[in-house]
Amino acid sequence: MRATQLPLFTQKEDPKDAQVVSHKLLTRAGYIKKQASGFYVFLPFGWMVHRKIEEIVRKNMNKYGAVEVHLPILTPAELWEESGRWNAMGAEMMRLKDRHAAGFALGPTHEESITWLAKQYLQSYKQLPVNYYQIGVKYRDEIRPRYGLIRCREFVMKDAYSFHIDEKSLDETYQKMRECYRDIFNECSLETLSVEADSGAMGGSGSEEFMVASAIGEETLLLCSDDKNCGYRSNQEKTPFVPAENYPVEKNEKTPKRKDTPNVKTVDEVADFFKVDKKQFIKTVIYENSESIILVFIPGDREISEVKLKNILGVAELEMASPEAIEKVTSAAVGFAGPFDLPVKENEEIIINKNKKKIIFLYDEKLKGRGNLISGGNKTDMHYINLQEGRDFIISKEFIDLVTAQDLDLCPKCKKNKLKGTRGIEVGHVFKLGKKYTEALNVTVLDKLGKELIPTMGCYGIGVGRTLSTIVEQSYDDKGIIWPESVTPFKYYLIGIFNNDTDKKEIEALYEKMIANNMSVYFDDRDERPGIKFNDADLTGFTLQIVAGKNYIKNKVIEIKNRKSGEKTEISESDFLSKEKS
Amino acid sequence: MRATQLPLFTQKEDPKDAQVVSHKLLTRAGYIKKQASGFYVFLPFGWMVHRKIEEIVRKNMNKYGAVEVHLPILTPAELWEESGRWNAMGAEMMRLKDRHAAGFALGPTHEESITWLAKQYLQSYKQLPVNYYQIGVKYRDEIRPRYGLIRCREFVMKDAYSFHIDEKSLDETYQKMRECYRDIFNECSLETLSVEADSGAMGGSGSEEFMVASAIGEETLLLCSDDKNCGYRSNQEKTPFVPAENYPVEKNEKTPKRKDTPNVKTVDEVADFFKVDKKQFIKTVIYENSESIILVFIPGDREISEVKLKNILGVAELEMASPEAIEKVTSAAVGFAGPFDLPVKENEEIIINKNKKKIIFLYDEKLKGRGNLISGGNKTDMHYINLQEGRDFIISKEFIDLVTAQDLDLCPKCKKNKLKGTRGIEVGHVFKLGKKYTEALNVTVLDKLGKELIPTMGCYGIGVGRTLSTIVEQSYDDKGIIWPESVTPFKYYLIGIFNNDTDKKEIEALYEKMIANNMSVYFDDRDERPGIKFNDADLTGFTLQIVAGKNYIKNKVIEIKNRKSGEKTEISESDFLSKEKS
Repeated sequence: MRATQLPLFTQKEDPKDAQVVSHKLLTRAGYIKKQASGFYVFLPFGWMVHRKIEEIVRKNMNKYGAVEVHLPILTPAELWEESGRWNAMGAEMMRLKDRHAAGFALGPTHEESITWLAKQYLQSYKQLPVNYYQIGVKYRDEIRPRYGLIRCREFVMKDAYSFHIDEKSLDETYQKMRECYRDIFNECSLETLSVEADSGAMGGSGSEEFMVASAIGEETLLLCSDDKNCGYRSNQEKTPFVPAENYPVEKNEKTPKRKDTPNVKTVDEVADFFKVDKKQFIKTVIYENSESIILVFIPGDREISEVKLKNILGVAELEMASPEAIEKVTSAAVGFAGPFDLPVKENEEIIINKNKKKIIFLYDEKLKGRGNLISGGNKTDMHYINLQEGRDFIISKEFIDLVTAQDLDLCPKCKKNKLKGTRGIEVGHVFKLGKKYTEALNVTVLDKLGKELIPTMGCYGIGVGRTLSTIVEQSYDDKGIIWPESVTPFKYYLIGIFNNDTDKKEIEALYEKMIANNMSVYFDDRDERPGIKFNDADLTGFTLQIVAGKNYIKNKVIEIKNRKSGEKTEISESDFLSKEKS
Repeated sequence: MRATQLPLFTQKEDPKDAQVVSHKLLTRAGYIKKQASGFYVFLPFGWMVHRKIEEIVRKNMNKYGAVEVHLPILTPAELWEESGRWNAMGAEMMRLKDRHAAGFALGPTHEESITWLAKQYLQSYKQLPVNYYQIGVKYRDEIRPRYGLIRCREFVMKDAYSFHIDEKSLDETYQKMRECYRDIFNECSLETLSVEADSGAMGGSGSEEFMVASAIGEETLLLCSDDKNCGYRSNQEKTPFVPAENYPVEKNEKTPKRKDTPNVKTVDEVADFFKVDKKQFIKTVIYENSESIILVFIPGDREISEVKLKNILGVAELEMASPEAIEKVTSAAVGFAGPFDLPVKENEEIIINKNKKKIIFLYDEKLKGRGNLISGGNKTDMHYINLQEGRDFIISKEFIDLVTAQDLDLCPKCKKNKLKGTRGIEVGHVFKLGKKYTEALNVTVLDKLGKELIPTMGCYGIGVGRTLSTIVEQSYDDKGIIWPESVTPFKYYLIGIFNNDTDKKEIEALYEKMIANNMSVYFDDRDERPGIKFNDADLTGFTLQIVAGKNYIKNKVIEIKNRKSGEKTEISESDFLSKEKS
């Protein structure tokens, strides 16, 4: 293709709102253009790369036995109501009413829709396992779309959903999909880490994310520092907390005392004031939902994990408690709560804003058996000292892990080595869904004995646009993008250097020969200075560059430059053309 | 691919709501499944055909120099407001608000969006002409979705938009696109008629539709019966009316008389009552919009063309006048209006429902110079006779054509031969748009002299799903679909007939050889009776069927059946495999 036919859309300036390399480079190199917050136009090269990634995904999904279908993007509200997600999905799901006032959602995911489809066609165990997939548009109304294609509102996903008669069959397909994903990302030359992920409050027995390590990643990953022998990798959200140094279990004889602590508010200030380690402080965090007020107690040196908390409670949504609720359950202003001498009891029901709510206490297991603890005084500007678990407050449920694990904690698998933290962008996710949707939509098949059986499901997603942009995050230099050959818009960027029409014709002839040889080549045939062409070749980042100038015109020798390594080779035209042919 | 890997989704029953062959067969053969009114799932074979058609479209668009981009489906309201279509589009355009209450539309078409894109990148005449296209999802909230994929609410369209410095350049691309469309439909083996189409009230200087002749078509086409020498073809909406027999121009001396005509209401009843030809009657039709009340007078033997009327008035919407308005402008109940002795005058302003509206009279040119006419009496249950144009009412604007042309009228091009009517389904449309959108969005480029110039546009659409279903409308028999080779999911449907595992293995070996030979084959390897396989092969309609049974197992001879002609050929395996390879 010639530049005079398929124009470049390069621009000199970074987009004003771009914070990350891929967003900047993809815009400057003319691959994408923002139309509205979270909505991007794909320009010709951008769509070519997108379609190449789609094809890599499709080829591998087919290779691993998945079956391609195509579901409507706009899905009827009834399907979401059957699964209970019409409400649960919240504002992230975009909705509309048609001219007859019927509700529809722009699918952020398609579990309901595919389960509906399965119900239409699956009757017998003989038809299982089956793994349906599609490559289609999804919508998520992100609060803060950002990072270009990495977090946008309209995007293309490959989503697959498998149906099985039992866990064993599900696990087989799940393992196949893990392999498939490795093949897909390898083929895209994208280095990913697969990590254990949270399965969510809604059940599901296994979950693994494919992450691209990146400083701009929104997820934190924790990896065992002994990658070779242990190899534990997990999303921080899901990692059990194993402290590198045990919390001291001790008994104190002194009784609790309430101390005046004016202007002592943060954990650091408390530790300073009482001259103790932060570990000795009991951090109290109070949450609220429509049914309960939840008081959570954890060691003062750590942060709470809301994901773990939600899983324990079995809820999808939680909010920080209102100041009003906090005052009611602690008799103090925000910031002075503790487990001792509270005005409310576990399981007690209280009225907040005319709503009846149950009091729930949750203690992290790292507080078990400990003494000499300090907490808020349940009175404004006061703290308790000399608290003793088992006496002043009692942890009845053991082994509740409510703490966010972090860098330098112990690996929960080998329990020998320390964890190493890194940031990551999720590009793929495999997930054992279980029967949530088949149960909700009443899908049954007959088993070998003619008895009805509810199939269990897996689901498997890859973000195509996100894969595209993370390839750029991993592969660029100060001049522009560097595409791996598998997804480059064209393999060769042909730069012709000519001063007159006769020379130009020679280079056009080279281009025509390459085309006749079925080579994937983009010919920059613009009447521009060589410097501009070199810059655009580097910026757009096709895998190989061909420079044809004087040496070509005189001696029929071309120079091939590898965009990544910068390595240049000279080769005669005839060798070049015949090599490519073979 | 094997049936045990890529399952059939065939079903025995026609869908209950299916009225047309393509909807029935595509559902029964397992290509599509309705999820909601106007929303269809594409099953594996359906999506394969869809993608093949997309590729044919893409290949030909690229061949004719168009540039593929990909625009967001959800488009911001501001773009539609700039062009004035946020209101004009009405209920057919599906809309929603995001979490920040910003308005968006699910694009039914993308003129605004592409014009916005052009504005970002076009600066100079040197960049023109350019023809951007995409293959993407569109939404139209049809009042009555029907005929399966032919009129649905979510569908894939190829839409292209070209930008030009002048009409000449626009016409060149327009002609190229006409050729391109012919190539596309030829490659799909779809017989289309290209017909002149209405350009709409919004301007545009040329418009042609690609129609598939079909009894279920929603459009009526009028073709000159001398296709060879004249070749005129037009959408009925757009065809000028040339009567086969002239309307009699005459002068009558008698003065108008108002006659009692109780129970005489329809045109037929009036003609019967007064014993005259319907041509002598003046049919009065009264419309209303927010600014005007329009009284339209046409010959009694013909129907009014609302498309022509809208074009003359330059409006997109018109409604029949309310009974209240009719009484006010005629002093009579509905059904007794006429041009003589009206209580209102041309251009007079009257108040209807508190709104000021202007009176507009429009006379069809076929009433010019005529006498002895009859019309409603502008009094309930009365008619006027002896009306004379030029005396009792005066046609000031000449050459206004307000009549719908029809079968057996004269061809407006050759004016010799009669028109022949046929029904058609629109699958493609090429259209000279003009500057409506470039003006609305302030797109300018610099011309050769450095002066600002507003580019003119063309647009070109093809419905992919509609093309798919019209191929079926044109190509089926009582057993099922018959796919042309260019779009068949697989070229061969391999039917193995075996009684034991040894024989089955032989046929599996044949399949493996075909695969090794890169042949496109679907192997029905199910343990089903041959009759079921033959039926499914016919129903799904792949271009060629291969039967491998006894004769194959004994003599390595296979039978190839052409699905369309029914012709059967026997061929040795070795000949078959080597033939295909060459």
